[in-house]
Amino acid sequence: MTIILHDLAGADPDLRFSPYCWRTRFALAHKGLLVETVPWRFTDKAALAFSGQDRVPVIHDGDRVVSDSWAIAEYLEDRYPTPSLFGDATGRAHARFINSWADSVMLPAIAPLIIRDLLDVVAPQDRDYFRTSREARFGTTLEDLQSTRDARLPAFQSALMPLRMTLRRQAWLGGGEPSYADFIVGGTLMWPRCASRYQVLAPDDAVTDWFGRLLALFSGVGQQAKTP
Amino acid sequence: MTIILHDLAGADPDLRFSPYCWRTRFALAHKGLLVETVPWRFTDKAALAFSGQDRVPVIHDGDRVVSDSWAIAEYLEDRYPTPSLFGDATGRAHARFINSWADSVMLPAIAPLIIRDLLDVVAPQDRDYFRTSREARFGTTLEDLQSTRDARLPAFQSALMPLRMTLRRQAWLGGGEPSYADFIVGGTLMWPRCASRYQVLAPDDAVTDWFGRLLALFSGVGQQAKTP
Repeated sequence: MTIILHDLAGADPDLRFSPYCWRTRFALAHKGLLVETVPWRFTDKAALAFSGQDRVPVIHDGDRVVSDSWAIAEYLEDRYPTPSLFGDATGRAHARFINSWADSVMLPAIAPLIIRDLLDVVAPQDRDYFRTSREARFGTTLEDLQSTRDARLPAFQSALMPLRMTLRRQAWLGGGEPSYADFIVGGTLMWPRCASRYQVLAPDDAVTDWFGRLLALFSGVGQQAKTP
Repeated sequence: MTIILHDLAGADPDLRFSPYCWRTRFALAHKGLLVETVPWRFTDKAALAFSGQDRVPVIHDGDRVVSDSWAIAEYLEDRYPTPSLFGDATGRAHARFINSWADSVMLPAIAPLIIRDLLDVVAPQDRDYFRTSREARFGTTLEDLQSTRDARLPAFQSALMPLRMTLRRQAWLGGGEPSYADFIVGGTLMWPRCASRYQVLAPDDAVTDWFGRLLALFSGVGQQAKTP
């Protein structure tokens, strides 16, 4: 059965840049599940009312509705056990740390680098909401953030050190094969890739090499995703 | 058979404060293995010549010699599989990320907070080496570092966010039970605990609660460790 994924889209409905939705996209692809995505915009809260909350990703799997990328990964793992996303219970618990790291370290470091570019790609009806909510969150204008991005980039790249050190010793965060840990971090990097032309990774970084391999997985679902 | 652990000690041979040796201590305790520790000092490089390198931890398990805390954890897991430190291969791969995070984020953030205090606890013969090597590494005096520690403390506590977020959702980094991930991070926190009186954790932090539970494991091996 095809799983339906409500997926954040830009003005161009083919532009999909949510880091959380990408975690789900990769997880679905890993499980070999067919997916049909439904474009969703930030201000379209009513369209998600059925899920009891107002953020994407949300999936429908038949009658079952699941929201939140972590909860979706756990649902998919329990409902469709192979190939595994997490390994055993300890692997799942450890992956939660990597999820927390991506959310609390990667996302806040990426945001100022690309947030002004996001304004250019979100749907017209989302623009006022997007600027107002993000400027309130950051306490400054999107343009001010963009003007400091070159100065902020080294701190972001430096924050990837745990990733870089890990990838010196193993091909994937999951070890010999990709796991949900790879999809968490790779999904997060789909955000700058699909919302901006700003290059957040250095060409000679081991992270860049790993991300390139991740983009090629699953017949290149990441590689082929539309970029601005 | 009793495993021998070469363990960094201070002027007081009962003061053991190496974050890497503590990872091994906890791992050995988790496996229920008997251990005899041999105090070692920084300048006693010759005493480790048998291991082909010059840093602790080093274990002897019968004729087998293993150095490096990560390599020791893998050796113990493979040689004494239960109770598991890592769960399955995916759990082990994910734990390596947490090890890389502890090494590249926690240790550099803790060092300036306690490095001057370390000078007071290391063995007399280690003091010149310790000051010279650490001042070269940091490019400043140990006293200058100490004078800025209150200003640096919030950044350290903030860097623990991935840990804090994870512990909101599960009792241990290993999930329902402690895993080597807990011993990596907890071993790292034994460094300030056993080398300094400076309090690096806030009393109301979920990390403090978790660390207290970790200290109580294995008949309180962490709790009972000597502190300055």
